[in-house]
Amino acid sequence: MWPIIMASFILVSQDSHFPLANIPFGTGFSTHNPNPRCVSRIGDFVVDLAALEAEGFFQELSNTHFFSNPTLNSFMSEDKALWRAYRSKIQALFAAENPLVRDNEQLKAKILIPISEFTNTLPVNIGDYTDFYASRNHAFNVGCMFRGPQNALQDNWLRLPVGYHGRSSSVVVSRHPVKRPRGQIKLLDSPDPVFSSCKKLDHEVEIGVFLGGKLNKLGEPINIAVASEHVFGLVLLNDWSARDIQSWEYVPLGPFTAKNFQTSISPWIITTLALEPFTTGLPAQDPVPLPYLREDPPTSFNITIETFIKTPSLSEPHKISTTNLQHLYWSIYQMLAHHSVSGCNMRPGDLLGTGTISGPTPDSLGCLLEMSTNGKTPVALPNGETRSFLNDGDELIIVGKAESENFTIGFGDVRGVILPALEDQYFHN
Amino acid sequence: MWPIIMASFILVSQDSHFPLANIPFGTGFSTHNPNPRCVSRIGDFVVDLAALEAEGFFQELSNTHFFSNPTLNSFMSEDKALWRAYRSKIQALFAAENPLVRDNEQLKAKILIPISEFTNTLPVNIGDYTDFYASRNHAFNVGCMFRGPQNALQDNWLRLPVGYHGRSSSVVVSRHPVKRPRGQIKLLDSPDPVFSSCKKLDHEVEIGVFLGGKLNKLGEPINIAVASEHVFGLVLLNDWSARDIQSWEYVPLGPFTAKNFQTSISPWIITTLALEPFTTGLPAQDPVPLPYLREDPPTSFNITIETFIKTPSLSEPHKISTTNLQHLYWSIYQMLAHHSVSGCNMRPGDLLGTGTISGPTPDSLGCLLEMSTNGKTPVALPNGETRSFLNDGDELIIVGKAESENFTIGFGDVRGVILPALEDQYFHN
Repeated sequence: MWPIIMASFILVSQDSHFPLANIPFGTGFSTHNPNPRCVSRIGDFVVDLAALEAEGFFQELSNTHFFSNPTLNSFMSEDKALWRAYRSKIQALFAAENPLVRDNEQLKAKILIPISEFTNTLPVNIGDYTDFYASRNHAFNVGCMFRGPQNALQDNWLRLPVGYHGRSSSVVVSRHPVKRPRGQIKLLDSPDPVFSSCKKLDHEVEIGVFLGGKLNKLGEPINIAVASEHVFGLVLLNDWSARDIQSWEYVPLGPFTAKNFQTSISPWIITTLALEPFTTGLPAQDPVPLPYLREDPPTSFNITIETFIKTPSLSEPHKISTTNLQHLYWSIYQMLAHHSVSGCNMRPGDLLGTGTISGPTPDSLGCLLEMSTNGKTPVALPNGETRSFLNDGDELIIVGKAESENFTIGFGDVRGVILPALEDQYFHN
Repeated sequence: MWPIIMASFILVSQDSHFPLANIPFGTGFSTHNPNPRCVSRIGDFVVDLAALEAEGFFQELSNTHFFSNPTLNSFMSEDKALWRAYRSKIQALFAAENPLVRDNEQLKAKILIPISEFTNTLPVNIGDYTDFYASRNHAFNVGCMFRGPQNALQDNWLRLPVGYHGRSSSVVVSRHPVKRPRGQIKLLDSPDPVFSSCKKLDHEVEIGVFLGGKLNKLGEPINIAVASEHVFGLVLLNDWSARDIQSWEYVPLGPFTAKNFQTSISPWIITTLALEPFTTGLPAQDPVPLPYLREDPPTSFNITIETFIKTPSLSEPHKISTTNLQHLYWSIYQMLAHHSVSGCNMRPGDLLGTGTISGPTPDSLGCLLEMSTNGKTPVALPNGETRSFLNDGDELIIVGKAESENFTIGFGDVRGVILPALEDQYFHN
């Protein structure tokens, strides 16, 4: 095993999400260099991987220049052994006891960028985005509201990880504001749908899974035994949802305009290599899945995910939920095996969302729809305000981290502020 | 208007799909040049647009080199005025009365490739693929089989063009064989699903719509008044479907592994400019759609689409259906306006499928599920065979064309042969 608590000569505060044990991957540009490129992060410094690569530090590992690209796709197309080698190399370069970079002020000026001078961009050119529905608590809670408790969890739900294709063009990186969508809404007291701004704008707490490696060809499945080789890393994901549009449009082919207006992800991809120490099992699945879904035992990661809301009147963000990736029923590797079982070819840079991660308790729910029981039990905020859904001006913040006694592997956060809907005149003549 | 019946010095047979009035766009490589590049077609000759561009023939229109790219995305990102200018230029270069190319044997050897020496590739790097469900006959027929006649056409169907996100990675160009998928199937007489090869493999006759031009930003809708500016052209599309997998998995989020194993398109993109003379109206929609969907009147194109099956025992393909794009209830421009209404950003190269196009009569249905009433009324073939769904070795061929008294604008065809499913051992340990 790699030395997980090794220290860097870069000062990293005790509560930082990005110690030397993390080494996340991202992209962006800096005040002094406007070209988007691939980077990592240690504490409050961005490590310019493109500059390190140009200096020849990775030559012993590969002759390919991965990091001058504006996205990580090229690097993600390599295999896990190479990801591991690069990660180890970066850790070694910034280890406290290694003078090579530590004592070279000129080099440090080239490759280290204060986080305040850096802007993250979308780290991956996402080929296809797929969203699952893998939390039993969430599926049951939402199913109750849309179809009643009798039909909440449908027959297939315990047999396969239900999922559907999402929209990749509207996946954006954290801090991109969210324009309140407009669309068709069917009110209970009217026979006709109306065209309206969304009145039930919601968030959904998810983990995003970025695929990488040499993936399957069209017509060939990914065997679950090798599925973990094909996950490059994880991000936080907010699957913004227009609940009133969704409930009207979603039969029989699933959510469409209620979801495709925006999906936000956190900027730093946390590799499964960094998360290895936080691997956990999932509870036994009953009924036992068909052999192609049999992972023995299904694995997850112990990742705590907190959700905060910051309304314009609140002085600071207020926590409304604490959940955990372990609350999923299906594992991310089962999702990948199922996705490809019919022969669907997966590509490096494809994104899978887990679906909303809701725990079993009222304080561990993954969306406002569940917290407010579709508006019946509004969430009380400390300043006396309440929220059933998101108002214009509200900021929704999701923070994730894996913690042990000795160190933290953090995700940072994914956040977005709600902007008012466009005026009616944009939509017709 | 451009002179639609102008002749080329290239001999074009009376029944060719590709007279000088067509000028389709595609990509591919030839025996003598293995680099995929952009091309057009006149009669049985491929026109090497990359070579024409390199010779400077388009310099007066743009300095950008569009056609040496392996896909048409760059060209499709321009606007309709430029597409029109290029199209006119190509028509002028190959007009019977123009000696410039006609009398230059050396040039002709460079830019004209016999179709037999050419292999088409997927013409577009597809960002997102979305599939609609816009034929009322199809939605009703299939709804009856999945949910009974009472719930066949759901409440929202007449109010909005129902659609869902598809999988872009598995869109392939015509002639790619189709490996029969495996997946979860729930038989009526068993409480548990089984893992099986698909027993109800079907085709779906659709038109694919490729978007282009300067499209909308995230958060902004495409006004239906300008939707037609954003359609580059059309192809034939076969949305291969595993009906037994679909009926088990599709609730509540829509079809997933039953569709994402493969979608095939015809290789030549037929521009809406070429199809202008075949513009038609659609019947009045009742109820009248909400203003953002109001196209006055909804328009379509008169495109006849024939489906043939060639089983290993048949001596020639046998026609099983003749339908028409006009049988759709929703127009392709209404689909685009609806898709973007919540602010979903569309990109040049995005693909929209219309959904299966079924007419009102038994001989105009767009899939075997409907023709055979889910196996109850198998289709009789002239050699005594019957088909409820596709067998291994069967080839399914869809041919499309717009015809007037004077000329034909054809699509060519999209075809694929069914290969046997993979053995069980590929799927588990």
